[in-house]
Amino acid sequence: MSGEFSLIDKYLVNRQKSRKDVLLAAGDDCALVEVPQGVSVAISTDTLVAGTHFLSQANPAWVAHKALASNISDLAAMGATPAWVSFALTMPEVDEAWLKPFCDSFFELADYYDIQLIGGDTSKGPLSLTLTVQGLVDPSKALRRDGASVGDWIYVTGNLGDSKAGLDVILDEAVRAKPNAQELEKRHYLSSPRVLVGQALLGLASSAIDISDGLISDLKHILNRSNVGASVNLDALPISNELVEFVEGEQSALQYALSSGEEYELCFTVPEQNKGSLDSALAHCGCKVTCIGQIRPLGNAQPSESVELLHHGRAVTWQLSGYDHFKA
Amino acid sequence: MSGEFSLIDKYLVNRQKSRKDVLLAAGDDCALVEVPQGVSVAISTDTLVAGTHFLSQANPAWVAHKALASNISDLAAMGATPAWVSFALTMPEVDEAWLKPFCDSFFELADYYDIQLIGGDTSKGPLSLTLTVQGLVDPSKALRRDGASVGDWIYVTGNLGDSKAGLDVILDEAVRAKPNAQELEKRHYLSSPRVLVGQALLGLASSAIDISDGLISDLKHILNRSNVGASVNLDALPISNELVEFVEGEQSALQYALSSGEEYELCFTVPEQNKGSLDSALAHCGCKVTCIGQIRPLGNAQPSESVELLHHGRAVTWQLSGYDHFKA
Repeated sequence: MSGEFSLIDKYLVNRQKSRKDVLLAAGDDCALVEVPQGVSVAISTDTLVAGTHFLSQANPAWVAHKALASNISDLAAMGATPAWVSFALTMPEVDEAWLKPFCDSFFELADYYDIQLIGGDTSKGPLSLTLTVQGLVDPSKALRRDGASVGDWIYVTGNLGDSKAGLDVILDEAVRAKPNAQELEKRHYLSSPRVLVGQALLGLASSAIDISDGLISDLKHILNRSNVGASVNLDALPISNELVEFVEGEQSALQYALSSGEEYELCFTVPEQNKGSLDSALAHCGCKVTCIGQIRPLGNAQPSESVELLHHGRAVTWQLSGYDHFKA
Repeated sequence: MSGEFSLIDKYLVNRQKSRKDVLLAAGDDCALVEVPQGVSVAISTDTLVAGTHFLSQANPAWVAHKALASNISDLAAMGATPAWVSFALTMPEVDEAWLKPFCDSFFELADYYDIQLIGGDTSKGPLSLTLTVQGLVDPSKALRRDGASVGDWIYVTGNLGDSKAGLDVILDEAVRAKPNAQELEKRHYLSSPRVLVGQALLGLASSAIDISDGLISDLKHILNRSNVGASVNLDALPISNELVEFVEGEQSALQYALSSGEEYELCFTVPEQNKGSLDSALAHCGCKVTCIGQIRPLGNAQPSESVELLHHGRAVTWQLSGYDHFKA
């Protein structure tokens, strides 16, 4: 970093209390962190590019929240405790009116999860951000995608579908007149990573993933890695009243729930024998969880047909739209 | 990653043997790595943006080398042993003719240093790359910027100045006719991170930094953090014959050596009592090191005047140009 870009420092450096496990943060060639014995480091990297993942005129506070929350969500899906983040910011010029709300929002969320910014890089170029978050987890209990077994129950946190409705609002000015449009746009940006739920699931869930591509796409990641199939009960999918009003009907809302990406809710599987323990384990998390189906044998089905959808007790085939951000 | 961008997977996934400390790499929400007891994790993030750090028509194999080498160099400057890298790639469209040589070169260098790619993200957008490398180091010996003391000797590895000459060649077609132009351009891209030297300096050097902004700029980072000054003997600066021919004279070459950035050589300080051990410690590294000066008291000097330059035994004031990549 040199010249005007060193100005960015004032928004990024010395904004937080130092964690005890951070020996060196900004100001040297590397950050230096300590890892306690018996835990492993979970690491995830995400990039958000203006025009691909958000519009450049989007509220910078919301962009910061989305960037960090989506990355923390990957830690939540492993059951890891968030610890550190590195942050690479590329912007065309130093825009303090953008940087201040962006950084305020970034550090508000980071502080909430006791995540310390340990380093990064700032460059001149088209607006984009890359975050690498790291967390700590007992490797013998970490929630992976490959542990689902036939008979396990499938759960999701929160509601599904709102994020896709919010994206509709962002992409189409005409949609802003629909009911709840502003609220759904806000929900698209301001998701809550399910960190507490992920941690509560350690030792209980057999697999987990966070919903970034859409429920069915992400559930299929679990199914492929675990070599199983699933049936999903559409009548059980958790959807908000605001979404039903926005899309004018329950069936449309359910279709949104199946394909809506960037939800950052968790989808996880729980063996029958752990089902009873789940309620008490999640009691302190303040987060709704819903059982939406069950893991089935894959049989002769192709991976693309690994999910059976049940509507009012009957198998249905619904054509699901993908969730591809701002497909040009 | 979705759609055409999943094509990139074939260039990135399953290209390497797994390190024993990597429990999970690609294919889950996070990578999962183990850290041995008694060592800390050193972490560094660097972004390279097309048009800012390299030209988009640059040789992709060279760009990959530069991106990874510059990041490894930060680990070298801490004395850390490289271990893992996360890689975020943003490109306008999937260009296989660019990706193949880029990835081949990336993995060649990663394998040389036993660095495993543990994850990342690929996005559609203007060409840029962000790498986060991680290494392991005994925190009680890690080379920091803040340990230099009055009387310590100042050293640099390799030669200085070639990178800036190479940048001249990249930026100005007319310069390509000068002697050694192609060789200096290549040196600009293909630096050798001084990992072995950094490790050999553990317990011997009192401070270290890698030269990314230019010798004087980076030496000042050590001086500021250590609250000391320095005198640098210009007659001792290691410069290549190729550089002297290219800039047509020794004095110009020395000026290049003082301000040339992206050298990825190490600048480090060694207390008098460790000077004797240095030669034997570095014997196996195959890398020239040169003593270029000594740490002095800062006295009443401003930080901007913390470096005294000596030429033929006399103090001189040379106006140094900065090193600001592709200042538009």
